[in-house]
Amino acid sequence: MSHNADVIVIGGGPAGLTAAISTRRLHPNKKVLLIRDVETSLIPCGIPYMYGTFNSIEKNIIPDKVLEMNDVRLLIGHVDDIDHEGQILSLSDGSSCAYEKLILATGSKPFNVPIPGRDLDNVIFVTKDKDELSKLRSSIEATKDIVIIGGGFIGVEMADEINKMTDANITIAEMFPRLLINAFDETESKEIEEILAKSGITVRTGSKVWKIKGEGAVESIKFAKGDVIPADLVIIGAGMVPETSLAEKLKMPKNLFGGILVDDHQKTLAPNIFAVGDCCAKISYFDGEQANIMLASVGAYEARVAAMNLYSEGPINPGAIGAFSTIVGGKVYSSVGLTQANAMNMEIPTLSSEFKDSDRHPSAMPGANPTKVRLVFQDDGLLLGGMVSGGTSAGEAINVLASCIQAGRTIQQIAMMQVGTHPAVTASPVTYPIINAAQIGLTKLDACV
Amino acid sequence: MSHNADVIVIGGGPAGLTAAISTRRLHPNKKVLLIRDVETSLIPCGIPYMYGTFNSIEKNIIPDKVLEMNDVRLLIGHVDDIDHEGQILSLSDGSSCAYEKLILATGSKPFNVPIPGRDLDNVIFVTKDKDELSKLRSSIEATKDIVIIGGGFIGVEMADEINKMTDANITIAEMFPRLLINAFDETESKEIEEILAKSGITVRTGSKVWKIKGEGAVESIKFAKGDVIPADLVIIGAGMVPETSLAEKLKMPKNLFGGILVDDHQKTLAPNIFAVGDCCAKISYFDGEQANIMLASVGAYEARVAAMNLYSEGPINPGAIGAFSTIVGGKVYSSVGLTQANAMNMEIPTLSSEFKDSDRHPSAMPGANPTKVRLVFQDDGLLLGGMVSGGTSAGEAINVLASCIQAGRTIQQIAMMQVGTHPAVTASPVTYPIINAAQIGLTKLDACV
Repeated sequence: MSHNADVIVIGGGPAGLTAAISTRRLHPNKKVLLIRDVETSLIPCGIPYMYGTFNSIEKNIIPDKVLEMNDVRLLIGHVDDIDHEGQILSLSDGSSCAYEKLILATGSKPFNVPIPGRDLDNVIFVTKDKDELSKLRSSIEATKDIVIIGGGFIGVEMADEINKMTDANITIAEMFPRLLINAFDETESKEIEEILAKSGITVRTGSKVWKIKGEGAVESIKFAKGDVIPADLVIIGAGMVPETSLAEKLKMPKNLFGGILVDDHQKTLAPNIFAVGDCCAKISYFDGEQANIMLASVGAYEARVAAMNLYSEGPINPGAIGAFSTIVGGKVYSSVGLTQANAMNMEIPTLSSEFKDSDRHPSAMPGANPTKVRLVFQDDGLLLGGMVSGGTSAGEAINVLASCIQAGRTIQQIAMMQVGTHPAVTASPVTYPIINAAQIGLTKLDACV
Repeated sequence: MSHNADVIVIGGGPAGLTAAISTRRLHPNKKVLLIRDVETSLIPCGIPYMYGTFNSIEKNIIPDKVLEMNDVRLLIGHVDDIDHEGQILSLSDGSSCAYEKLILATGSKPFNVPIPGRDLDNVIFVTKDKDELSKLRSSIEATKDIVIIGGGFIGVEMADEINKMTDANITIAEMFPRLLINAFDETESKEIEEILAKSGITVRTGSKVWKIKGEGAVESIKFAKGDVIPADLVIIGAGMVPETSLAEKLKMPKNLFGGILVDDHQKTLAPNIFAVGDCCAKISYFDGEQANIMLASVGAYEARVAAMNLYSEGPINPGAIGAFSTIVGGKVYSSVGLTQANAMNMEIPTLSSEFKDSDRHPSAMPGANPTKVRLVFQDDGLLLGGMVSGGTSAGEAINVLASCIQAGRTIQQIAMMQVGTHPAVTASPVTYPIINAAQIGLTKLDACV
């Protein structure tokens, strides 16, 4: 039996879905098949919210109707091997699929962090697998002392959400000196640590886990410093690594972080095979160096680049900017581009400026939240990054900055930006934080008026 | 007595405030004085919300502490005349103020629409005056049939808000064939009309008011078509005109719409005198022609341009883009740049594309709203305008498009935009509406892949 198609996408996560939909839209004469090896695909960024906010796993399933609506065929199956010369896939059920173009979107899996005791019962990795995550849900119900290893987005969001469904003690164990160290500068990390502490979560930064201890099931955690805390459930969210077992069969070269090497059109070294999303290598937009950025939004972007390059030379991917939001204790923290710490690692000298206001005007408006914008820029004014915290509209405000970075805008230009405002949905036109932060930034530049 | 200062701003609205604050920030050695002729200044865009949402006028006052915080001196007084050669203002209390630079931000006043009967009792213009607006509040309480003349932002927002505080019949009378004709294309105008109708407001478009009838107080409205409806309160919100009585004393030339003529640095023809906000002439960003745009956000922008140009040649104002949001029946409608109808008037051929989605993902996320993005672009892809409707984050999503227009971005570039997403605050990375609308737009361009 065969399931031939013009374009085959392997992987049903955000990058795979976007690749399939974009291909259909841009190449309407091509038949597109999406193959995934799980019955249901979860929204990866929605996983923490299955615990508190949704209190349900079913609500976080990517609806297959989006494929139907876009006339993408779906096949549940496991691809065993790729014959890249014959342009044929073989599936584990013995069937095969011929393709013109193949897009690998095989995603990522949890980093199997080498801590002794990780195989004990009640030590659970945060995967994207529905059954594993269901098991985690039931484990939470019976526990008293939960330790979450990893203080990145997964760890912080899991802690914040699990805290809504249980009275258990929750501890976040992070080996770096602060939470979310790659995403935010120190000010925001500290704010987030305080919000978590206020809601009763214990945050232990600078605390490398030495050993997970127990007989059969986990009983305690021993830190490198020697102290021991009780634990009857350990959740490991210590980063993800590219899922590349299929690519390995083709001996595809990988980068430093294990991602499949691609060129700036998302092409792998194998003819007619593209790779997008967490499984593929990335470079930074800012210095062109290898980068370890795993974001659904970056994967979806790469998928759009691939779809534009399948049959003719299209736009290039200049590298990942990295824009993201998280929500902690009901407060949104969004970030784009470089933090000052990131920039320092790249040896780019930066300045920063900030401005605080209400995100409604007057601040008596229902739904108003204090909001803060911080801009990171070069000494010639070029915008390199920014941070917005506050209410839910911070999630779109950060995209104003994302669009400015991609257009190569300077704080001189942002200080002269025209925006729309309204009492019920934005800050005041007088104090609009992005513009005011840029204007304050001007006073810090040598070339200031 | 004298109140000398280096820079004097006349007017305490958003443009005046922004001019004063920006001047202090950018020229920290200069003393800045703001003169206004009212004890308290209202947030102009917040005026409709004093009726329903706030149920209070006090909550909509611009706080004077923002002046103190920025070390701007405030003087309540009426400027009678300007000696522009001597660089001295004379006030009606006999005092005077010498200045180096003067910024006029005298704002606007209601267009005195020439309808017979406008002088009857209970016919009230929507001004920015606290006492007038308080009178309106008490009038509403005792009425049965309210007619609002004018279906622009003021009329629509007043109707929506007054409807929250009274059981009276409310009718909007608009002479044009649809509401908000300058701000939105027909689809959105019709949607807004339906929302208003559902909340019990009668919308009469294509209905020019011929006469306001009554003995002493208003009793009915007669339309040009001949029909008559009862009315015991008439609210006139039929546009604003520049307040230029001071400029007239200097014989400053004005544009077609009555705004004080300024160059692209916001300089008037009188030396050392600048004008910003509703009182000054504007051109369109898109064709450089005279434009009748009155928005607090545009005024604040012009104020920032003026502040940068006070003492040396700074950036120019290329014309107003026009970005705004409104909220009707709890739904946000935001717009930026040209509608297709506006573009047609400028003889610019356009295409458009749209995409609908939820503004959270999955759509089961609390606070999720359906959202729609429509893009208006040239046949080479250059973005000219856009519309976002949905939940409150539409107010910032429109600023993503505003920033794209100002950076000269095309839909080819927007389709390849990198953005940040998060389940609780944005649409999904797969279906992010601005990017998907742009990608759909690509398929409409001849130069498509």
